Amino acid sequence: MSVAQENNLVLLIGPRGKRFITRLKAGASLHTHKGVIQHDALIGQPLGRQVKSHLGEPFLALEPSTHDLIMNVRRHTQIIYPKEAGYILLKMNLYSGQRVIEAGSGSGALTLAMARAVAPGGQVYSYESRPEMQRNAIRNLQRVGLDDYVEFKIRDIAEGFDETDVDALFLDVRTPWDYLKQTREALKSGGFFGSLVPTTNQVSDLIAGLERHHFGDIEVAELLLRQYKPVPQRLRPADTMVGHTGYLIFARKIEMEEASNEASPPMP
Amino acid sequence: MSVAQENNLVLLIGPRGKRFITRLKAGASLHTHKGVIQHDALIGQPLGRQVKSHLGEPFLALEPSTHDLIMNVRRHTQIIYPKEAGYILLKMNLYSGQRVIEAGSGSGALTLAMARAVAPGGQVYSYESRPEMQRNAIRNLQRVGLDDYVEFKIRDIAEGFDETDVDALFLDVRTPWDYLKQTREALKSGGFFGSLVPTTNQVSDLIAGLERHHFGDIEVAELLLRQYKPVPQRLRPADTMVGHTGYLIFARKIEMEEASNEASPPMP
Amino acid sequence: MSVAQENNLVLLIGPRGKRFITRLKAGASLHTHKGVIQHDALIGQPLGRQVKSHLGEPFLALEPSTHDLIMNVRRHTQIIYPKEAGYILLKMNLYSGQRVIEAGSGSGALTLAMARAVAPGGQVYSYESRPEMQRNAIRNLQRVGLDDYVEFKIRDIAEGFDETDVDALFLDVRTPWDYLKQTREALKSGGFFGSLVPTTNQVSDLIAGLERHHFGDIEVAELLLRQYKPVPQRLRPADTMVGHTGYLIFARKIEMEEASNEASPPMP
Amino acid sequence: MSVAQENNLVLLIGPRGKRFITRLKAGASLHTHKGVIQHDALIGQPLGRQVKSHLGEPFLALEPSTHDLIMNVRRHTQIIYPKEAGYILLKMNLYSGQRVIEAGSGSGALTLAMARAVAPGGQVYSYESRPEMQRNAIRNLQRVGLDDYVEFKIRDIAEGFDETDVDALFLDVRTPWDYLKQTREALKSGGFFGSLVPTTNQVSDLIAGLERHHFGDIEVAELLLRQYKPVPQRLRPADTMVGHTGYLIFARKIEMEEASNEASPPMP
Repeated sequence: MSVAQENNLVLLIGPRGKRFITRLKAGASLHTHKGVIQHDALIGQPLGRQVKSHLGEPFLALEPSTHDLIMNVRRHTQIIYPKEAGYILLKMNLYSGQRVIEAGSGSGALTLAMARAVAPGGQVYSYESRPEMQRNAIRNLQRVGLDDYVEFKIRDIAEGFDETDVDALFLDVRTPWDYLKQTREALKSGGFFGSLVPTTNQVSDLIAGLERHHFGDIEVAELLLRQYKPVPQRLRPADTMVGHTGYLIFARKIEMEEASNEASPPMP
Repeated sequence: MSVAQENNLVLLIGPRGKRFITRLKAGASLHTHKGVIQHDALIGQPLGRQVKSHLGEPFLALEPSTHDLIMNVRRHTQIIYPKEAGYILLKMNLYSGQRVIEAGSGSGALTLAMARAVAPGGQVYSYESRPEMQRNAIRNLQRVGLDDYVEFKIRDIAEGFDETDVDALFLDVRTPWDYLKQTREALKSGGFFGSLVPTTNQVSDLIAGLERHHFGDIEVAELLLRQYKPVPQRLRPADTMVGHTGYLIFARKIEMEEASNEASPPMP
Repeated sequence: MSVAQENNLVLLIGPRGKRFITRLKAGASLHTHKGVIQHDALIGQPLGRQVKSHLGEPFLALEPSTHDLIMNVRRHTQIIYPKEAGYILLKMNLYSGQRVIEAGSGSGALTLAMARAVAPGGQVYSYESRPEMQRNAIRNLQRVGLDDYVEFKIRDIAEGFDETDVDALFLDVRTPWDYLKQTREALKSGGFFGSLVPTTNQVSDLIAGLERHHFGDIEVAELLLRQYKPVPQRLRPADTMVGHTGYLIFARKIEMEEASNEASPPMP
Repeated sequence: MSVAQENNLVLLIGPRGKRFITRLKAGASLHTHKGVIQHDALIGQPLGRQVKSHLGEPFLALEPSTHDLIMNVRRHTQIIYPKEAGYILLKMNLYSGQRVIEAGSGSGALTLAMARAVAPGGQVYSYESRPEMQRNAIRNLQRVGLDDYVEFKIRDIAEGFDETDVDALFLDVRTPWDYLKQTREALKSGGFFGSLVPTTNQVSDLIAGLERHHFGDIEVAELLLRQYKPVPQRLRPADTMVGHTGYLIFARKIEMEEASNEASPPMP
């Protein structure tokens, strides 16, 4: 996608690093604090170059990355950030062809990362109890053209999931430990469980729940991203950083065999 | 893949969390410090359950995740860890169908993550100057069945890359700034550049090189992974953590237009 | 103390950075993995220079810092490290003349830092329930010549402290929330409270206890120390770091006035 | 100091945690965004209690800690924070009776911490080239009553320091490597050197300079402070944190002996 076509998503980076993502439409224009950019000046032209707004301000015109798309999601909630999303994809084995459930949809940031990872051939099932929240998530997926890989459902997940034997299931809800029975029913044997919670109390409650429900290989981690000012002669970290997004919890669904049911301790 | 088939990769997690990955073969056996496990006891059986070694020690039998496969790579070098690999995939826009170059192959850890991300339909081109190093990387990709998505080449990349117009290019070499001309020739306009270097001096040299070679949207970051002991009543971070793997540098190839060549400053 | 005198503490740093602290005695010698150093070769000589062991190995002979002394404590327990100790001194207002209680004595690492901070004119009261543990702490303080500033007591602190109106009180015990009534009785109005606990569950329990016991200005923090390999051309963090020592909790004793007892919420 | 006296420093913590430090004077008043507090309502009264502004807003009245005093310094520059100051005191062996040089004075934050540590009996010599900057530092030390322990000097330190044989010397200047000859002349043998610089390039330059000037036991570190929201049922780190203050560099002055001058490598 070196030449921008109508309908392509384009990332425009303004003078002070401000980022805009827009879908190209003949005759349309992008209005920014640094002037207007005509879509027609981009359509049919190569990307990866500088364009000028009507005020003469320079913008970089680029294809957006998955990272850019996640950060650009219109959010009604705290989103799951790329630093966590990338790690979740590898821990939960999400690649082309996998079937994964997430609940809730939130603003669709993780949904987007998952959809891109399991396409083609895979499927994301995204559950949410609040219709207006999910409408926003759907729009976010539509904007980036990944909605075909996601089946959205309005549901109180206490009632259970429709799917069975899914490869992976991610809970981004306030009390994930309340839905582990439903989670087990949906996951295949050995399936990948993941969750993100903001407080240590929730981590404790979730781990205890996972042990009670015979999940194994439980792991808890957090990721800290430290950005640097990219100045060769004065290299240094940025003055402030995000201090916390959440704790990641991963586990695997383990089948308890009749024989070993006796008094066996929780899995390692 | 809930039922293990011959030829499947299986992850076995021993009593104290020690992890083994093996490919199932009828009649074969896995020898561990906690006893022997017969592959025949796994083939045709569901995964996600506990099996016992001949010493009666319990092992969890599971499908390995991409994370597990990366960590299991036989390494002759420092590998790129999943925490960085996951982030690289999102920042460099690697998904099904993308074409990406990496140099060098190293032990194949990032190669594996990239191959899984761009499959099907995409391709990884992996360059390496040391044949014995690449042989190890090839074996690592073969072990996990992802070698079809990777074209391995022995080459001093000072001579340039064979491909042009690739979507992304990652340099995992000691002096990445020495190969930015070759990088530009291989990348499409706006293409994604990434690198990982261990020292701050290299970060400075690389940023300076990227500015000289008209790359834009330069970012430098590091990721710290903090793992917790998953004990509900005594939740706490692990006593030690990896203090440093490397600095990540990302940038985009920008076309300098004739007109603006005069005295324009580096891109934002 | 540029010239080493008999009875001085001397720090000797061996070829690969290994550190030894010894008290100089005429005729004595230090036995290390890199050879023997005669105290007589140090006594009466300037510090801040290189000496050789009988094997010809170079050692730096230096006056030890408070940091060195803390790290050199003979430990029967996890000690409180200098990164936390330094911060504790400033948060708990420990300087010459202050009176401070700590419980338990542990191995005496924090005791040492506190003794040095409140001397001269101040006093540390160090409580411990296990006699053998305290004997070790006493020896550690004697070794560095700071035992005059510490009054050691064997006591189950559930029985309360002997002192009243102390400026500060630090609890390094497993269940600090069990001793907040005793803490209030010992502290002056507005006095400084501090504690260090390893788990998040303890942090929650302690904060809840502090609120119940009318402490105010509650703060929770942790400090991460990241060390770098000091090589000018290859500057980089050390490969591993301490991932966790403990959570620091600070608060102030607040007097609840009769009038405001009615229904006032806990202090900010 | 449980009962507030005229001339005492008092810390007042307002409804949303905002902190004020003031020196009590009969008839004076503190004007805040949450109303006025009469000093006369504090003088002669115990500290460690709640007072109300004329608007009925509650404030905690407390003795300020060294930490509070540092954070309250009126700053014309980036200050050295308590997390670093506390560590510096232990690494540089600053306690009652020590003599220490610092350059520059900056806003006096580290000066304050050092003055409190070396009092009584010790002395801080604080050099600064910009008179208006030092005037601010002097006022900050006077406000907290620690100016007796500091001798302030206006000087371009390229001209050298007046003192010799000082125990410790801290450089908080942009190019500390330019003043290492002067530093050696002022420090006693084995004396403690410290510095704080914001960029990695400066760290490399300083380490190289220290090696050239025969300093030994060189250490580089940074400290990250992570604060938590102190809510027992929802314990979690604060959303944002300070991402960088600076890199700490420590070293010791080593005497090079004639004999070993030949071709000895830099100290460990």
